[in-house]
Amino acid sequence: MNNFRLTSFLTSNIDIDKNNLESMVSQCKTKFVKKGEYLLKEGEKCKHSFFVEHGLLRQYALDDKGKEHILQFAPENWIVTDRESVYFDQPSAYYIQALENTNTILFEESLILHLSKQDPLFLEFNNKLLHNHIRQLQRRITLLISATAEERYLDFVRLYPDLLLRVPQWQIASYLGITAESLSRVRKELATKS
Amino acid sequence: MNNFRLTSFLTSNIDIDKNNLESMVSQCKTKFVKKGEYLLKEGEKCKHSFFVEHGLLRQYALDDKGKEHILQFAPENWIVTDRESVYFDQPSAYYIQALENTNTILFEESLILHLSKQDPLFLEFNNKLLHNHIRQLQRRITLLISATAEERYLDFVRLYPDLLLRVPQWQIASYLGITAESLSRVRKELATKS
Repeated sequence: MNNFRLTSFLTSNIDIDKNNLESMVSQCKTKFVKKGEYLLKEGEKCKHSFFVEHGLLRQYALDDKGKEHILQFAPENWIVTDRESVYFDQPSAYYIQALENTNTILFEESLILHLSKQDPLFLEFNNKLLHNHIRQLQRRITLLISATAEERYLDFVRLYPDLLLRVPQWQIASYLGITAESLSRVRKELATKS
Repeated sequence: MNNFRLTSFLTSNIDIDKNNLESMVSQCKTKFVKKGEYLLKEGEKCKHSFFVEHGLLRQYALDDKGKEHILQFAPENWIVTDRESVYFDQPSAYYIQALENTNTILFEESLILHLSKQDPLFLEFNNKLLHNHIRQLQRRITLLISATAEERYLDFVRLYPDLLLRVPQWQIASYLGITAESLSRVRKELATKS
């Protein structure tokens, strides 16, 4: 499988030499999932972080009434996982599903930890990944508690510029924590403004 | 200053010997803030993680209309910081303020990274802290996009059992992302149920 995106992702985030890079990439497994298939279901233990080489994943939770709540989309170059489940070895509260046919590369937590102990560069790389994740989650919370529906939508467009045509509207509304009707109104108002 | 809580926090989270523990604790500075004083203001670069030895802090953002939105409370044994600002060396979008007279112990990011490189135990400790943070943020997002006001309030009580009498109601409502009126209604309904 082509792992062009992973190689590019690594070299742009870590000052790694060619041999170490090839050694790391060769230790990662790959997995292909068809549109609609799952990489993780609620109640299972999540064992990997999934890097999206090509395609689109979504991570969501299901509430008691069977309603889906989308935590994250992961198009090309994104990593998706349930870190709580992986790290604390607990059953996951989430589903990770393919919205398109998707090629993923699997990071094992043990490999990352092993490489971090061997090489300070990997330690810093992993630290950077975790802090990026924290930054993204913190921004999401601030938007959810303080921003209007329009502000949340504009942030979505900035964060995921190419997803507007790849994801159904109701799923974007679910990610934003608003109703499909509110999203439709916001889009109309923005269209009138511009 | 008494650092009983920090010592206890460290020994319960990391398998550390007495000499290493004393060496680490002795390298941490302390800071006392009076009720109402700030450890961080919007626009400043956050330089530390603050461990609360005694007292109570809150982290909040201010929107364009001057409204406060509370991201986190930090009573005893909690750590509060703006990891985005510390790690990416960016001006913070948050305030960290004392709600009571508070004794804090300061972790410098460079000390944590230095210790992580020297000792795999610290690497795992820091990893655990980051994953705990991610776990908490992820739960908060899931609650914000999927839970009712009552469910959010019950989660708050579980997470911060001793804060109900230490924090004004409007600040709890701000943390929950609901109005003070909604919080008041939820509390009345719960009182009727029990």
